[in-house]
Amino acid sequence: MKIVAIRDEVVPIRSSIRNAFIDFSQMTASIVRIETDVVRGGKPVVGYGFNSNGRYAQSGILRDRIIPRLLKAAPEDLLDDEGTNLDPFKAWDVMMANEKPGGHGERSVAVGTIDMALWDVVAKIEEKPLYQVLADRYNAGRADPDIFVYAAGGYYYPGKDLPTLKAEMQGYLDLGYNTVKIKIGGSSLEDDLKRIEAVLSILGEGQSLAVDANGRFDIREAIRYAEALEPYELFWYEEAGDPLDYLLNAALVQATERPIATGENIFSLIDATNLIRYGGLRPDTDYLQFDPVLSYGLVEYLRILEMLKRHGWSWRRCIPHGGHQLTLHIAAGLGLGGNESYPHVFKPFGGFGDRAQVLNGRIKPLEAPGIGFELKSDLMDCFNTYFT
Amino acid sequence: MKIVAIRDEVVPIRSSIRNAFIDFSQMTASIVRIETDVVRGGKPVVGYGFNSNGRYAQSGILRDRIIPRLLKAAPEDLLDDEGTNLDPFKAWDVMMANEKPGGHGERSVAVGTIDMALWDVVAKIEEKPLYQVLADRYNAGRADPDIFVYAAGGYYYPGKDLPTLKAEMQGYLDLGYNTVKIKIGGSSLEDDLKRIEAVLSILGEGQSLAVDANGRFDIREAIRYAEALEPYELFWYEEAGDPLDYLLNAALVQATERPIATGENIFSLIDATNLIRYGGLRPDTDYLQFDPVLSYGLVEYLRILEMLKRHGWSWRRCIPHGGHQLTLHIAAGLGLGGNESYPHVFKPFGGFGDRAQVLNGRIKPLEAPGIGFELKSDLMDCFNTYFT
Repeated sequence: MKIVAIRDEVVPIRSSIRNAFIDFSQMTASIVRIETDVVRGGKPVVGYGFNSNGRYAQSGILRDRIIPRLLKAAPEDLLDDEGTNLDPFKAWDVMMANEKPGGHGERSVAVGTIDMALWDVVAKIEEKPLYQVLADRYNAGRADPDIFVYAAGGYYYPGKDLPTLKAEMQGYLDLGYNTVKIKIGGSSLEDDLKRIEAVLSILGEGQSLAVDANGRFDIREAIRYAEALEPYELFWYEEAGDPLDYLLNAALVQATERPIATGENIFSLIDATNLIRYGGLRPDTDYLQFDPVLSYGLVEYLRILEMLKRHGWSWRRCIPHGGHQLTLHIAAGLGLGGNESYPHVFKPFGGFGDRAQVLNGRIKPLEAPGIGFELKSDLMDCFNTYFT
Repeated sequence: MKIVAIRDEVVPIRSSIRNAFIDFSQMTASIVRIETDVVRGGKPVVGYGFNSNGRYAQSGILRDRIIPRLLKAAPEDLLDDEGTNLDPFKAWDVMMANEKPGGHGERSVAVGTIDMALWDVVAKIEEKPLYQVLADRYNAGRADPDIFVYAAGGYYYPGKDLPTLKAEMQGYLDLGYNTVKIKIGGSSLEDDLKRIEAVLSILGEGQSLAVDANGRFDIREAIRYAEALEPYELFWYEEAGDPLDYLLNAALVQATERPIATGENIFSLIDATNLIRYGGLRPDTDYLQFDPVLSYGLVEYLRILEMLKRHGWSWRRCIPHGGHQLTLHIAAGLGLGGNESYPHVFKPFGGFGDRAQVLNGRIKPLEAPGIGFELKSDLMDCFNTYFT
């Protein structure tokens, strides 16, 4: 078998939302399409990929370096031992040839976007949903039947007041979510506490609220917030400071009994290792949110999981950033702690498929070969529009 | 005043050389040209920039994000308080608007390439060589009259044997260098020791040899090499392992009395801070090689220097990667410990100007307004060819 063609396009995912660090009015995403000469159901197997929200499209690196290396590789350098399917690990080595160590940003997104499409192909050729491929290969066949998901929203945008915020959160509860998340750090602590209290006022038994500062705070502000947040018993306090400021995280966990979460802006095995070595996080309390797509793909994510195991961390502490079908398959197939979800933002990339339903805060991956993009019509419309 | 135009192009800097990690047969660099409406000597002031070797051209990020943000900014958002010159710090904030924290690679190169051109403009408008601008602003007016430089070479390439290696090093000594550097880690320890002994056999009193593993080794191999290198009293042992593996560096300095050097693949203030916090480096022994161009420009480099001062490090311990005129001006103006030089590779970007001469291992920056590209004819030929 061989790869016949790889295409990439840039899609705007403009939105008027804003977190504590950036606004999304200029945000873009890369989409890719890998066509093979393998036929399933009378048609060539095609894999799709896109990059998770928050980092920009990577057409420059994809077109200058990553895609040409794959297209120039001998077919056997990309195939498994039987020669009947792609091997994402071998493809990873091809993509990363002549790349120096260090500098893990942007490139990690380009590689991760292609990696998504490669795994889509792999599972389609195996004629299994990806979660089952992953469970069979890396988790003794044991896939979780359903997955914890939480609804991430509560962004700042023009004209948003407390009733609007409450209505947004009520909407998530009505969709079946039990855990919701809002942004903090975009105005003042006093204002954020009002936002938190407003949301808590509509939550009932078994429902909870997480908050996300998107890396905004220095160490003093991070700890001031931790102290102020403590009485609310929040689900977690996410990304208080610079994602690479391990010392800040280590200090923060000394300052609060409550769970903290971080990792979505850490993009490689060595950076993740440093977070575990130096960040002081508690394996029985805190959460790790590494995003497989932004950090060199599932191939590197598997290396990160292996590193966590060696450090005594359960994979249940991992709840990836991303909010899309790939992370849902990874969570189900590898037994992670759950998955992010963006019910109303980052369309068409966020979300899990037309028929996917959240029930009591949990969701099942759809039963289709591959990642299941074909069962998410807005996303397939996007792919079909750009790749005609 | 205002910026009239910003252009960028991609230049191949192909070479058959190879270090322990990558070959350079596909290497590229970005070049940029910033034109202003300020007139000096009857012509508009134009600034040039390029990225240091080892990282690829960044046209994607430059064209998609960095350059459009500068061109869309109100002129006053890029100017100093008098409105008569560019302010690279304000330009930095414009370039980094809507960029999330973390992920310091590629983007850091794009920003650093523009930053070089901005400082070239700043010094040309002040009608001073850049080193003098920097000394006046950040070093109480005290610039060093000349700068330690070492000759970096000794790459692996096809057909290279020990006599060829010795001849290459002899050539550097003949040019006036006292310290030379060769690559290690590309073959075996036994082979590398032969290379080291061959070079040492031609060095005399006051001359020394550094070695560079380009991040190739794991912790065991890094320490095995440290032990084997100890008797040779080398100038330094550079980048033994992954540049972000702080624990490896901390262990390495426990295993050797000799100087180690690292930092060229660390691309931001927070990553540099982590190296100082966790890398165990010795302020009286080791060297820091952060490359201002690859790591968000001189603006971020000044923040890194400030961080070093707070941690009790002398700026004399800094000998930047890069080997070009910008790093020479920075070394002279801010009183660093020296500068890298590539006498025979990475043309036309490496090197210090047509009339620049190494004398007893030291060199003076040329006396011309700006960075002095106009006094380096191969580089101006390149700019003129691509920017016609």
